[in-house]
Amino acid sequence: MRSLIDISDLSVAEIDELMRCAHDMISHPEKYEGVAKNKILSTLFYEPSTRTRLSFEAAMYHLGGHVLSVPSAAHSSATKGETIADTLAVISNYADIVAMRHPQDGAALVAATASRVPVINAGDGGHFHPTQTLADLLTIEREFGRLSDLRIVAVGDLLYGRTVHSLLHALMRYPGNTFIMVSPEELRLPGDFVARLRAAGSEVVETTSLTQALPQADVIYMTRVQQERFEDREQYERLNGAYELNAQAMTHASSTSIVMHPLPRVGEIATEVDHDPRARYFEQTYNGKMMRMALIYSLLRDAHDHPQPLPRHEIADSMLTDEYRCSNTRCVTNHDRDVVLRITGQSLCAYCDYPVVSLR
Amino acid sequence: MRSLIDISDLSVAEIDELMRCAHDMISHPEKYEGVAKNKILSTLFYEPSTRTRLSFEAAMYHLGGHVLSVPSAAHSSATKGETIADTLAVISNYADIVAMRHPQDGAALVAATASRVPVINAGDGGHFHPTQTLADLLTIEREFGRLSDLRIVAVGDLLYGRTVHSLLHALMRYPGNTFIMVSPEELRLPGDFVARLRAAGSEVVETTSLTQALPQADVIYMTRVQQERFEDREQYERLNGAYELNAQAMTHASSTSIVMHPLPRVGEIATEVDHDPRARYFEQTYNGKMMRMALIYSLLRDAHDHPQPLPRHEIADSMLTDEYRCSNTRCVTNHDRDVVLRITGQSLCAYCDYPVVSLR
Amino acid sequence: MRSLIDISDLSVAEIDELMRCAHDMISHPEKYEGVAKNKILSTLFYEPSTRTRLSFEAAMYHLGGHVLSVPSAAHSSATKGETIADTLAVISNYADIVAMRHPQDGAALVAATASRVPVINAGDGGHFHPTQTLADLLTIEREFGRLSDLRIVAVGDLLYGRTVHSLLHALMRYPGNTFIMVSPEELRLPGDFVARLRAAGSEVVETTSLTQALPQADVIYMTRVQQERFEDREQYERLNGAYELNAQAMTHASSTSIVMHPLPRVGEIATEVDHDPRARYFEQTYNGKMMRMALIYSLLRDAHDHPQPLPRHEIADSMLTDEYRCSNTRCVTNHDRDVVLRITGQSLCAYCDYPVVSLR
Repeated sequence: MRSLIDISDLSVAEIDELMRCAHDMISHPEKYEGVAKNKILSTLFYEPSTRTRLSFEAAMYHLGGHVLSVPSAAHSSATKGETIADTLAVISNYADIVAMRHPQDGAALVAATASRVPVINAGDGGHFHPTQTLADLLTIEREFGRLSDLRIVAVGDLLYGRTVHSLLHALMRYPGNTFIMVSPEELRLPGDFVARLRAAGSEVVETTSLTQALPQADVIYMTRVQQERFEDREQYERLNGAYELNAQAMTHASSTSIVMHPLPRVGEIATEVDHDPRARYFEQTYNGKMMRMALIYSLLRDAHDHPQPLPRHEIADSMLTDEYRCSNTRCVTNHDRDVVLRITGQSLCAYCDYPVVSLR
Repeated sequence: MRSLIDISDLSVAEIDELMRCAHDMISHPEKYEGVAKNKILSTLFYEPSTRTRLSFEAAMYHLGGHVLSVPSAAHSSATKGETIADTLAVISNYADIVAMRHPQDGAALVAATASRVPVINAGDGGHFHPTQTLADLLTIEREFGRLSDLRIVAVGDLLYGRTVHSLLHALMRYPGNTFIMVSPEELRLPGDFVARLRAAGSEVVETTSLTQALPQADVIYMTRVQQERFEDREQYERLNGAYELNAQAMTHASSTSIVMHPLPRVGEIATEVDHDPRARYFEQTYNGKMMRMALIYSLLRDAHDHPQPLPRHEIADSMLTDEYRCSNTRCVTNHDRDVVLRITGQSLCAYCDYPVVSLR
Repeated sequence: MRSLIDISDLSVAEIDELMRCAHDMISHPEKYEGVAKNKILSTLFYEPSTRTRLSFEAAMYHLGGHVLSVPSAAHSSATKGETIADTLAVISNYADIVAMRHPQDGAALVAATASRVPVINAGDGGHFHPTQTLADLLTIEREFGRLSDLRIVAVGDLLYGRTVHSLLHALMRYPGNTFIMVSPEELRLPGDFVARLRAAGSEVVETTSLTQALPQADVIYMTRVQQERFEDREQYERLNGAYELNAQAMTHASSTSIVMHPLPRVGEIATEVDHDPRARYFEQTYNGKMMRMALIYSLLRDAHDHPQPLPRHEIADSMLTDEYRCSNTRCVTNHDRDVVLRITGQSLCAYCDYPVVSLR
């Protein structure tokens, strides 16, 4: 592993190893206090996300390293028209590792191919956010001692919600999991995603009823409906208000279940649930910090073990083309003048997985 | 002491102890170089204030700690609708202590009740700014060797100026002080404040004449008239120009007096006074850094001595109600959806001390 | 040397000494890891420039010091009307050294005269940017082992481009250099500048043809045409597109030549040149970091060797006047109410070198 763009870059064995490392960091923090001494992390955020940025920076401090903080890169050279590739080529001279957030789908992949130091994707548009998924996995694993044979109830926006998609992608690689999907009709998990989960051997149940789903849950994973996805404000407010997890609803859930949420919440979980012993959404942020520590430590160690200039991140199984464009308006290929489209064998954009359109 | 919201949270003994600590830090900085090693301060600023933020961050560096800097939190998750309580619950997983600035009155109190780590109020709206007051007290004490039996001339906006109010609150607890209040009629100290000072045993003199007041001063405390308080620009400019301390005016002041100002100034003190040996307004910022060092050190030590999860900050002597609302439009209770109003025995808002209004 | 405002503040001997120091830091980084321990650098940026800010901050970390980062000072007290002098007087209490960037010509000089700690000019308007020039000099010197007897081809905006101006100012002090100036007619090097270069003993050739110039080059220095200089968008686009260095053009250049650019680029150099072994523009940013390390180290050491309060930066050979104003609308003297104009013996503004205008 050289950069982390998507949770699928990690094998199950690598995920397990990162979790083992995080466990050791929780138990023996003093062992890791100086392991990143004289190393520099740059948090390069093209859109502000205080929570995620601080989590990375706190992780680096616990490892004894330095931080070059860029809370809002968009206000700077980018406005002078600099490409992502050029920015990363420069930052590679200042930092030993980069955590980047960007509003465009696929931007992290572009960064990784240009960078001479490891790049961690801290969120690229509506696309990937692998360290959130690592936080989720550690939270589940610390609770149940396993990532298999669990019943996961996911609630809310299952159509667009990248957090749930990424978590399902990870959990479907472990055997015996059942996914109970609770959403309004308009926000159901895409049909091909359901098919993929079933093909992987997972059980999938779809429902619109939260109260019917709750009694079966080991994990209750609540999500926010993102207003920016809807042009129609009324539709947004109706869908966003569809499910609220409150003290009354929690009476339907098992005493051994846990409640998770990637945060921030805007009403999906009533504050009265904060005092419920099953609430884990604030611990998730702690676990996120520990997994980021493990990840930074692991990537820096790999780089140290290979002091020769490493080959840059490669985009596998795709071919360059200027005969197509990506159909996704938020895709980095439609914004950064240096990026040439690559298409996969399935005729999808290699940067964001959307269909491509012929320019002929 | 667990969090510092208002200068009145500190007993006279605690203020004296903080000043003793600051004196020791000034004399023996090397003793404190590593006392906050591996600790993290987050400067969580919902409105920018470079001066105050840097003062806290420099203080933390002198103690050997790390800083998670948030120069403008308002651009981030807050815009996604996150409450102060949720933000603090998350930040508590990243930082060991938080210095927070917020534009809403009472926001710091909300933060302290939600945080599992100590919160220092670095300014909440027009309400409190206790570390400015600590800087002022140290400046006076370093000059005169005492905080009692002093004649304080305060000049400018005495009606709204929170800096002067907070300083008077602190100094009225020391015996023998005389407060000479210089302001235009429209900006006089509120009548009930005058009454409270007198009830505490202080002498209060009110005047509109700066030159008559100056000869009596040990301390000349100048303040800025804040434009944002006035809808009428003409009135602002007339009042703001009412008093200028220049070299000529300084001929009326005693050779042992000192000139203070919380900064930034916008013309209240002519730059020619900068070279006057009685000018202390730049030293005030140095003293502010030293008091913040003493405060961070003290709060971290308390937390270390009580490693069990401490009870969160409590709001004393008040009761929850949804039958009233606060009359102050800038009060946090009118902005943060999670905060329920609390009223004191005197029917004031427990967050900002404004009168409450019945919703019936 | 106390502060660095302009490259001409440095003697040739001082530049050579800084380069020697940078060489030693490149070869023996471990010798310098703790030399700025417990010292604080403030990066005070009134306009955002992520690249330059991170370069300074990374340099300070490599020396073992702390950073007070101000990515966009303009959003803070400045909006309350604080002068540069007051801000620096305060920051001097928080930091041991300041790197400042400001949109107004002459602002760095104002800062240096008010500061009690060394100030490094990290760019003041279209005026000076000496650490960019130090980066350029080190890049050339590491390649050729000398700064003399070189043929420099500078391309692009030679009329306004401060980077080229500053580099020429530095290189004309070394013997035997030839400057080949490639630009459209509208963007030629100012005539008096050409005269000064020739008076200093340098050879100057002016041309509009890039391909004719390339074969003669040791150094090919490309620059960006800055859009903000032109009111007419069409003119800008025509001039900006005038020269593009691509693989085909590089066939005209010698195998021992090198390609430089201060970055960011917006099309002046095709990305295909990135893989050319003669490309040095990304190494320039590395060299910039190393020269900033050498500079910070040198200024802090000077301050340590003179622990008494040093005299502040003086403005030599000029006189205060309120009978003139500077004709440059971007000059700090026309924006900061505390700055009184100074004029040189040549009747130029001492802050920005523009002509002054009588107020009579």
